[in-house]
Amino acid sequence: MSQPITIALDAMGGDRAPDAVIAGADAVRRCHPGACFVIVGDRERIAPLLARFPDLAAVSELRHSDTVVSPEQRPSMALRRGRGTSMRLAIDAVAAGDAAGVVSAGNTGALMAMAKTVLKTLPGVHRPAIASIFPTRRGRTVMLDLGANVECTADNLVQFAVLGEVFARGVLGIARPRVGLLNVGIETTKGSDVVRNAARLLQSGGLPIEFHGFVEGDDIPRGTVDVVVTDGFTGNIALKTAEGTARLFADLLREALSRSLLARLGYLLARPALLGLRDRLDPRRYNGGLFLGLNGIAVKSHGSADELGFATAIAFAVEMARYGFNDNVVADLARWHAQQKTPTKVAAG
Amino acid sequence: MSQPITIALDAMGGDRAPDAVIAGADAVRRCHPGACFVIVGDRERIAPLLARFPDLAAVSELRHSDTVVSPEQRPSMALRRGRGTSMRLAIDAVAAGDAAGVVSAGNTGALMAMAKTVLKTLPGVHRPAIASIFPTRRGRTVMLDLGANVECTADNLVQFAVLGEVFARGVLGIARPRVGLLNVGIETTKGSDVVRNAARLLQSGGLPIEFHGFVEGDDIPRGTVDVVVTDGFTGNIALKTAEGTARLFADLLREALSRSLLARLGYLLARPALLGLRDRLDPRRYNGGLFLGLNGIAVKSHGSADELGFATAIAFAVEMARYGFNDNVVADLARWHAQQKTPTKVAAG
Repeated sequence: MSQPITIALDAMGGDRAPDAVIAGADAVRRCHPGACFVIVGDRERIAPLLARFPDLAAVSELRHSDTVVSPEQRPSMALRRGRGTSMRLAIDAVAAGDAAGVVSAGNTGALMAMAKTVLKTLPGVHRPAIASIFPTRRGRTVMLDLGANVECTADNLVQFAVLGEVFARGVLGIARPRVGLLNVGIETTKGSDVVRNAARLLQSGGLPIEFHGFVEGDDIPRGTVDVVVTDGFTGNIALKTAEGTARLFADLLREALSRSLLARLGYLLARPALLGLRDRLDPRRYNGGLFLGLNGIAVKSHGSADELGFATAIAFAVEMARYGFNDNVVADLARWHAQQKTPTKVAAG
Repeated sequence: MSQPITIALDAMGGDRAPDAVIAGADAVRRCHPGACFVIVGDRERIAPLLARFPDLAAVSELRHSDTVVSPEQRPSMALRRGRGTSMRLAIDAVAAGDAAGVVSAGNTGALMAMAKTVLKTLPGVHRPAIASIFPTRRGRTVMLDLGANVECTADNLVQFAVLGEVFARGVLGIARPRVGLLNVGIETTKGSDVVRNAARLLQSGGLPIEFHGFVEGDDIPRGTVDVVVTDGFTGNIALKTAEGTARLFADLLREALSRSLLARLGYLLARPALLGLRDRLDPRRYNGGLFLGLNGIAVKSHGSADELGFATAIAFAVEMARYGFNDNVVADLARWHAQQKTPTKVAAG
């Protein structure tokens, strides 16, 4: 039996809550022995659902909440008035040590504001970042920040690099993840002062990181590196541009393949191959905005996630906890900060 | 007979120069009566090519240059040492009034540096921008800046909005182009001070622009607006992310459709429909980095452009000249600046 890992679930967040949350948790339980849950939400709605999943019920504690954070609520309002909500109680469970992490498909801004306030950041991390996994030519790439920090310093970017690298190593299982800084060109003279300073710090060798240097927008889908580091403004726009472009392409392809009788027949024959491609790029298999850098694991699921999407987001939280993601980040950053304080050695003359 | 429009061509820039440049110019001549050319490059190589296109030769002047700007040359070096190059002589032809615009597939940085130095910016424009056309769900969208200005002020963004709007109206033929500012959310509180200030200026109504407000990354492929305005850092990364994602999708589709016998048969049947889609998204039909805001038209073709790609880039230059793109920009900006100086009217009490 694996060591138990408890994850708190906001069972009321997202368009398909609570059904998809409960079904997703059960799917994770089957694949991750040792996974336990604190399920927070409306007891009257959740208890009958849990009754349908007795094996899940056996490893879950149900905590009642009769209020939710609405999707439109401002983060500041959610912070002030959201104390009894399912989202807040799930975060509180992490702060109290009852769970290692929290998963919610609710309001992103409210989740980040509450998680930051309640859990605080890890020692050595000034600002948490939002990361996601992308399918690429070569496999999977982590990118961060995707919107938590519109403006960033070079130090923030260095910390994001550590967060992304530890994630790629510990959770994606990449032995020596290559880390790239997103820029408008790969030459060292390109870009803003912030990215050039961050590159200088990452190149200085004080971190246990395989720093690749600058990467460009097309390196994200190409999978040139395993971790793409950028500020939250650029990252958010790159993420949504990639998603939108993939959707446009898929829509146009679907239309083209239904335009004529011959095209429809061709589609039928090629269907198994096209379904394989669809599965590979299925956004549900990459669901989860990972809030990295907090003193506790927090994962934001897409609001429209179904059972499979929720299972992916919950599994990320379980795997981060099992790997000891936060301990590894703290250790790496402590080593880095100690080294930064050490006076530079003068080369022997 | 249409009014003559002369475009200077750097016949030596790009991987397929000079052949593709000459063939592309001939294609434009056929579709744009009145188009004339100053062709700059190695006379010994170009004269025999021109002999094969007598109708093109009849409307072209050949100017000899025996040096080129190399693709790796730094812009500062190209500026200092590039006086006799084909790129520089083509730009000089615009400055001398012999041509309305220049097209080159050479070194982008060198072309921008030389064009800025030789042609200067238009009155009212502080910084030129690079724009391109994207295929979208609804048609075509112009986006700028794509990399000329890594950092921008709110004023720069307002000027880019004018440049993009005049282009969409005059060259793409969109009667009332909608203009959007790229941001991490559509709410007015989102983003950096720069984008919020630019939005405030664009909303003030002093410009003859249909300002839509903020747009997000996925609004680019969706075609939510006709003109997407952003700084050169974000724009460059969004452009390359979109291109890279489309390429990944196309590559994976090609692989899926050749994996099994059935898939290959399906592809054969669906081929006409798929070729239609490929044509619609063909990057050669969107080729051309438009350098907007200079006192003279300048278009950068992709380095790997073939005859069709070159024809697109050259046609953009011809159409901008024919429309009087620069005169329209200057008029709009003069009206805007005059209004900015007028004290705000106090509402009658």
